[in-house]
Amino acid sequence: MFIVNRNFQAGTPLCTYGELLMTTLEQDIHAIGRQARVASRTLARLDAKQKNSILIAMADELIVRSPAILAANAEDISAAENNGLTKASIDRLRLTDLRIAEMADSIRQVAELADPVGEILREWTRPNGIRIQKVRTPLGVIGIIYESRPNVTADAGVLCLKTGNAVILRGGSEALASNIAITKALQAGGLHAGLPDHSIQLIPSKDREAVRIMAAMDKYMDVIIPRGGHSLIEAVVASARMPVIKHYDGICHVYVDHEADLPMALEIAINAKCQRPGVCNAMETILIHRDIADQFFAIAAPAFAKQEVELVADDSAFKKLASLAYPNLRAADDQTWRTEWLNLILSVRLVDDTENAILHIETHGSHHSDAIVTNNPHTAEEFLASVDSSTVYWNASTRFTDGGEFGFGAEIGISTDKLHARGPMGLEELTTYKYLIRGEGQIR
Amino acid sequence: MFIVNRNFQAGTPLCTYGELLMTTLEQDIHAIGRQARVASRTLARLDAKQKNSILIAMADELIVRSPAILAANAEDISAAENNGLTKASIDRLRLTDLRIAEMADSIRQVAELADPVGEILREWTRPNGIRIQKVRTPLGVIGIIYESRPNVTADAGVLCLKTGNAVILRGGSEALASNIAITKALQAGGLHAGLPDHSIQLIPSKDREAVRIMAAMDKYMDVIIPRGGHSLIEAVVASARMPVIKHYDGICHVYVDHEADLPMALEIAINAKCQRPGVCNAMETILIHRDIADQFFAIAAPAFAKQEVELVADDSAFKKLASLAYPNLRAADDQTWRTEWLNLILSVRLVDDTENAILHIETHGSHHSDAIVTNNPHTAEEFLASVDSSTVYWNASTRFTDGGEFGFGAEIGISTDKLHARGPMGLEELTTYKYLIRGEGQIR
Repeated sequence: MFIVNRNFQAGTPLCTYGELLMTTLEQDIHAIGRQARVASRTLARLDAKQKNSILIAMADELIVRSPAILAANAEDISAAENNGLTKASIDRLRLTDLRIAEMADSIRQVAELADPVGEILREWTRPNGIRIQKVRTPLGVIGIIYESRPNVTADAGVLCLKTGNAVILRGGSEALASNIAITKALQAGGLHAGLPDHSIQLIPSKDREAVRIMAAMDKYMDVIIPRGGHSLIEAVVASARMPVIKHYDGICHVYVDHEADLPMALEIAINAKCQRPGVCNAMETILIHRDIADQFFAIAAPAFAKQEVELVADDSAFKKLASLAYPNLRAADDQTWRTEWLNLILSVRLVDDTENAILHIETHGSHHSDAIVTNNPHTAEEFLASVDSSTVYWNASTRFTDGGEFGFGAEIGISTDKLHARGPMGLEELTTYKYLIRGEGQIR
Repeated sequence: MFIVNRNFQAGTPLCTYGELLMTTLEQDIHAIGRQARVASRTLARLDAKQKNSILIAMADELIVRSPAILAANAEDISAAENNGLTKASIDRLRLTDLRIAEMADSIRQVAELADPVGEILREWTRPNGIRIQKVRTPLGVIGIIYESRPNVTADAGVLCLKTGNAVILRGGSEALASNIAITKALQAGGLHAGLPDHSIQLIPSKDREAVRIMAAMDKYMDVIIPRGGHSLIEAVVASARMPVIKHYDGICHVYVDHEADLPMALEIAINAKCQRPGVCNAMETILIHRDIADQFFAIAAPAFAKQEVELVADDSAFKKLASLAYPNLRAADDQTWRTEWLNLILSVRLVDDTENAILHIETHGSHHSDAIVTNNPHTAEEFLASVDSSTVYWNASTRFTDGGEFGFGAEIGISTDKLHARGPMGLEELTTYKYLIRGEGQIR
């Protein structure tokens, strides 16, 4: 039933499909789920040293298998070209020796990180003498659904392994050959160093139905993480029976208060908008206190113009910017404030005060990353307390919402959820806990 | 569109339906959701002192309004009798002056607890000088769907308030009049002490469609907690777009190792099965090491017989128990090991060793609460590490999986999920966190 790429053969270390070939895609995926559940029990018991040797062996094997991975990737690229994919998509798909070396390096860096599993989060003794320990444990089986970049196969796979979780990967169909080659390398490398069978499995099907089947498989999967565009996340949310950790839009704001250091505000705004406009922690809307709008625009308009930023402004901002002859200006409409531009475009709105800035952010924002620039600590603390976003900033760029910038060492993504994981997700966010209770025969 | 009980009038403090009466149940519930979202912003900013005075005022008003609450409850009881509800159901539904006083007392106890909101979970400074704080915050808006006991209206409502959350309650239709009267008392009491409007709202509809509408309302609700039977939880899981915190079955095990202190094992087993058999942390299956089965049954059979426990035994246990002429015995079948008896019935199985006990628990259990009784610390630690349940015990009864027994002060339930909250849920589990970053103009 699987649409199997010719790079994929039954009985490979990827997954022993030889034993599994059943009649439906659903049965195949359930078999993968069952195997992952079994693997997760062994994985949960591996110590940090064992997991790190497996990681190193995986990194080594990726390098050894570079030629096979590049050959598989060339197939994907050629199919993508025949299918008329955009140059940008093909670029995301493309692997090179350098990119494979970077994947391997990043695996070695994950091996260097501390293992969160087994950490005692809290312990206490109750009056009846039972001793309670809250201990960090793996989640179990994690499903990850992602789009075109094949390096996610390695990144996501090794973060799950490091945290003692089994993982079921489902990458973009246009990268299937590359993903299979990478998974085989991870599996083969890992097996030499003691990786339990079926710890890292890839669903080798291009059928979209696979996503729905995974999302319904709460018996074998503890959580599902879709990494990709809005429609992918939406499809998973609509059908998932297990918890979904979502990475939705970032409609991020910078509010320039009337007591702001204006050159600082400008530097933060330019950085938040222009340093990398296509990412979720880039600024999409700037809110400016009406009282300092003229002063701010006097320095900001030339700076944004130099960066070739298109401004989409509310009435009063539009008038001011037009009078400054801003070269690339249009009027805001109903959709403006809810738009994630992901480009050199910026929504601009004047507000009367901090309260109105907060109200705008709470009404139109996506609760991702929002900043205030002000020299008034009372105003700043009011903003920090009132804005309900995963990361709220005072006098810093929104671009710091990132696992690396937080010092987490590794990042699986930036959660826009409030439960379990919020904001940058590091290794800890791939774990849960259990309670261990030791007694001497206590009863109720 | 609401099926409104005559105790409910438009424009009451419960919810200003006068302004809201729209054409469909969906629009009404969405209006409630929008209002809750607005309330949640104010609630998140209340300090512990303000929230505690509101709680005390609520408790006082419950007592003041006892006559109205009892009158509403009498309506529910009389309807339930006319509808032929079982005596047990009617019992769960019934309020008395004593039960109302207990509700009020339990609110006063919640006021005494420490407020988790605002707690700094972690803080650190990055090399670039930005200071990151991880701070505990309310979840926002919590939906709670529950069944017959009207006291849940007060319990759930005040735990959400204590943690700065707005709550949307949907109780059992047979308790609607009682729930409305209780909600009105909480609202009226709270408003005097500064409770924001729409902090505690009840959906005054008996239509089952209300559950589906709530579950789809991820725009206004951050989490949904169904408290009730399997089919209620299943209905919510199937339609929910937001995270669901589930309280599924407890198929709990006690494993009696061959190195157990047998009198201790018996005491734990009797307690875990008989002290309160209808709850989720009661034992449903006992696993006994084959080598000590005869010795154990010699003391256990008379003890279980005295408690009138029916035993459902695998082949070898059946033979031994039959030879002891156990009075209430039947043979296990395929369903036995997955059955939550919630009654004085116990599944009995002999196992060859600890590994097989663990395998049985992982295969058939519900990952709730499982115990080993042994004097061998190595065996015990192996069991504690390998069993993936919310609470794993060594030499203690499974009955301790409980917010009160853990010392949490209050309990919203016992989560069978792994994400966000696992095991007993106290106040902390009704919160999330956000990151606050303070800088001096840092950019990337």
